[in-house]
Amino acid sequence: MPQLDDVAFMKRAYLLALKGYNEGGCPIGGVLVDNETGEVLGEGHNMLVQEGNPIIHGEMSAMRAAGRMVTRRNTTIYTTLSPCMMCAGTIAQFKIGRVVVGDTVNSEGNVEFLRTRGIEVVVLNDKDCIELVQKFRAEKPDLWLEDWGGA
Amino acid sequence: MPQLDDVAFMKRAYLLALKGYNEGGCPIGGVLVDNETGEVLGEGHNMLVQEGNPIIHGEMSAMRAAGRMVTRRNTTIYTTLSPCMMCAGTIAQFKIGRVVVGDTVNSEGNVEFLRTRGIEVVVLNDKDCIELVQKFRAEKPDLWLEDWGGA
Repeated sequence: MPQLDDVAFMKRAYLLALKGYNEGGCPIGGVLVDNETGEVLGEGHNMLVQEGNPIIHGEMSAMRAAGRMVTRRNTTIYTTLSPCMMCAGTIAQFKIGRVVVGDTVNSEGNVEFLRTRGIEVVVLNDKDCIELVQKFRAEKPDLWLEDWGGA
Repeated sequence: MPQLDDVAFMKRAYLLALKGYNEGGCPIGGVLVDNETGEVLGEGHNMLVQEGNPIIHGEMSAMRAAGRMVTRRNTTIYTTLSPCMMCAGTIAQFKIGRVVVGDTVNSEGNVEFLRTRGIEVVVLNDKDCIELVQKFRAEKPDLWLEDWGGA
């Protein structure tokens, strides 16, 4: 398959995360891309605060925007933060073939879970992604906890 | 804690599933209930067809309706069909304490995954829940496949 520009797509996901941060929300972005064409199928960011909706993490926002699909095997999802169990479960259930993670420092997430399901996972540990969530966690620890599933 | 009436809440979830079926959608319903008060915190049904949104399974619909919460440990989620990996991952991530499942016949789901996470799971295998999904699968096998994550 053609090689996707992982760094460029992660930058796109980061800018979505930054948009979420500037709206007063949780700064996590996601982009779902067609592996063959490089087309962006859906993208978005965490909407916990903006919609009062706890299930719209960055990855879920991208999935929702992409809408109905017969198969997602030949897609890559870019996420600025390593997937929580909801998002990892979603990636597995919907058979997304490849995951690129911007940050496993703020949360290790579920990289191993995804790999045991046969999903290719690339970890970038991008400085911008890591620093944005570090800043957010320091500023709004209660919101970080709520977003990550609550107490 | 007070005993919730599992049969009555499952009936409520079933009626939501039936509503979804009558709208031409996937017939799976969910209800999130406070264990102490018996209050319904959120409820809904699968909205794949109605919203063109693949992530709104029955459980997710109930989670969305309930909105923001500091903790969900002392809640029970009723689902007419055993949770897929997305919904099981969500239940685990958001620390829902108890799950009541209407049907493990049409899909075994992820009962064991939930139990390994320390979540109490009750399986009712309710005749109405099972028969409704069996009818749906026979009528719309492609939609069933799409809803369950695609090919």
